[in-house]
Amino acid sequence: VWDVFVLGVGICAFGKRADRWVEELGAEAVEAAVADSGIDRRRIEAAFCGHAFAGRVAGQRVLALAGISGIPTINVENACTSGATALHLACKAVASGEHEIALALGMDQMTSGLVEATPSDFEGALGRTLPVKYALRARRYMSAFDLTVEDLADVTVKNRALGALNPAAYFRQAVTREEVLASRMIAEPLTLFQCCAPSDGAAAVLVGSRTAAAAAGRTAVRVLASVLCSGRYQSARDGGPSGDDELTIRTSRMAYEQAGCGPEDIQIAEVHDAFSIGEILAMDNLGFCATGEAAQLVRERATWPSGRLPVNTSGGLLSRGHPLGATGAAQVVEIVYQLRGEAGARQLPRRPTLGLTHCTGGALPVVGTGSCCVHIFAA
Amino acid sequence: VWDVFVLGVGICAFGKRADRWVEELGAEAVEAAVADSGIDRRRIEAAFCGHAFAGRVAGQRVLALAGISGIPTINVENACTSGATALHLACKAVASGEHEIALALGMDQMTSGLVEATPSDFEGALGRTLPVKYALRARRYMSAFDLTVEDLADVTVKNRALGALNPAAYFRQAVTREEVLASRMIAEPLTLFQCCAPSDGAAAVLVGSRTAAAAAGRTAVRVLASVLCSGRYQSARDGGPSGDDELTIRTSRMAYEQAGCGPEDIQIAEVHDAFSIGEILAMDNLGFCATGEAAQLVRERATWPSGRLPVNTSGGLLSRGHPLGATGAAQVVEIVYQLRGEAGARQLPRRPTLGLTHCTGGALPVVGTGSCCVHIFAA
Repeated sequence: VWDVFVLGVGICAFGKRADRWVEELGAEAVEAAVADSGIDRRRIEAAFCGHAFAGRVAGQRVLALAGISGIPTINVENACTSGATALHLACKAVASGEHEIALALGMDQMTSGLVEATPSDFEGALGRTLPVKYALRARRYMSAFDLTVEDLADVTVKNRALGALNPAAYFRQAVTREEVLASRMIAEPLTLFQCCAPSDGAAAVLVGSRTAAAAAGRTAVRVLASVLCSGRYQSARDGGPSGDDELTIRTSRMAYEQAGCGPEDIQIAEVHDAFSIGEILAMDNLGFCATGEAAQLVRERATWPSGRLPVNTSGGLLSRGHPLGATGAAQVVEIVYQLRGEAGARQLPRRPTLGLTHCTGGALPVVGTGSCCVHIFAA
Repeated sequence: VWDVFVLGVGICAFGKRADRWVEELGAEAVEAAVADSGIDRRRIEAAFCGHAFAGRVAGQRVLALAGISGIPTINVENACTSGATALHLACKAVASGEHEIALALGMDQMTSGLVEATPSDFEGALGRTLPVKYALRARRYMSAFDLTVEDLADVTVKNRALGALNPAAYFRQAVTREEVLASRMIAEPLTLFQCCAPSDGAAAVLVGSRTAAAAAGRTAVRVLASVLCSGRYQSARDGGPSGDDELTIRTSRMAYEQAGCGPEDIQIAEVHDAFSIGEILAMDNLGFCATGEAAQLVRERATWPSGRLPVNTSGGLLSRGHPLGATGAAQVVEIVYQLRGEAGARQLPRRPTLGLTHCTGGALPVVGTGSCCVHIFAA
């Protein structure tokens, strides 16, 4: 029986926070999650900390600042999926009956901390960096399906408009389609405003058993599904989707099965818009539309708060910024706020009851691997 | 019911292996573990990769080289305990019934790869580095108990003599007490030969359920206990042991309880001799002798293969080298070899039936935290 509940969530303001240690950002998020849950921090039995750049035993350093010590603490890394991976392990630890209450934390500091290259990333060293990879995916999608540069820009327009309503977001100014298209070209067709920014931030999620949730005495959000996958090697000759596409398709289908629902049931989603095209691809791959029809959702404004499937109401990675390890946890914070009706100016007109988070990380084009994590939550 | 078995182990030669990517070292260890188990690699359901310096999604990159793709893969970091933490999670995944077969991998490349400092390590920046911390612990032990610089040197003498018999060890030349004491002073009383060397290496452990072990059709080693803890904050004024000492004492007591045995039952152990004093402290803290009497074990040669409790028959970190993420897994490889009677020239005269591995990592003196992992195995 998969019986896991979100007891509390916390997030610190994202952005340039070079005046703080990354541990302080993490502790700020943990304190917020503990306060949100109303639970005595001494009842937390284990902690999982997702980060990509915070150095050795970073989770232990955060917990020491947050007045939590002695509990099993595990630092996890899965590139942009690190924070979601931490939540996945925390959910497993509760679901297996091992722990009553577990903490998942995601964090990173990229504007002043050390952000080193992976030694064996010869592709990146040769210029095939992430913006370039996403640009190629955009080009391919545009040649195969109906997608224009204006549609891509409109993803940013929506996310920046929503980010302006999110106190935790890095970028809080709305932009117009014209401004997006006129911003500096990074990797054609992606302009600067269509690329997420390296930034600093942290988010935390406390999960617990049904008993712990009942005792907490506030609306607990249930975790219906938590699925983590890595990519499957697939050469171009095998046909079908490959890389990030295959990975998101497979992971989300497993999550829908675990949750006992389908993509048509999802009422709100936070997806991996590291670049504007990322949101388009995610909508396709998560099954929110037929393959190749994501641009239609953009044109119909279906993904705005007033639409049939609001996406990235937090402002997404494009507004919040993308401290690698923090993102997967920050997405969950937004969905939990929305399901509890506590999203402030961003709250959907009709409070959603079923939400999804999706992130992918480190997809390696040559070997077709990387990681993807999908969670589904119910109010 | 805790029912977890080691199906196979693998290790690559440790040392300066700058001619290879760290991923290649990892894949070499995984290939060896798969071959050792006789199991089809397509039956591995999940993988946990412990490392401290290998960059983003390193485990996924290793698996791609080893022809394994599509399975959930999680990279974990807990400083020197990273490899053991990976095994801990793999054991949990099997024990909970989630997976039939899981892979734990530990690896690092430190002689050519990127070994960056942790940004917030202000103590290290001021000179309170690891050798200094261990030297202070040695000084304190020498002032409180009966321990001489000759005893400390003799730890290295034993471990280098055993390392000379281990094809996977970095240093394969025996040394005399005089040579150890005459080697360059690093942090008094610790000379160069009493300090482990940063190095390159990888080790892998395949674990599975009772069913998987039975089907494998070879002597399976059972995992009786797998305990991971982080430190408890304790000021000097609280009295009693603190830091690494408290952590090892607490973790090992939990492991003995899980295994249903005591320290007196252990017949062989691999302990965290990052520095010679580390082995002395470990013997005290693991309960192998009364507090303060570890030097007596050294003088009686009780920890040599012919003694009553052989310790670090692999040569330990002092001989094998200490690629942070690899160590915790490499220790397990040695114990499994010994329990199966396959340790070659290092095989104990009487094959042991109960063995223990112990490593600690990242103990932070100011906040008294860090991590420790203890595993107990039975033939």
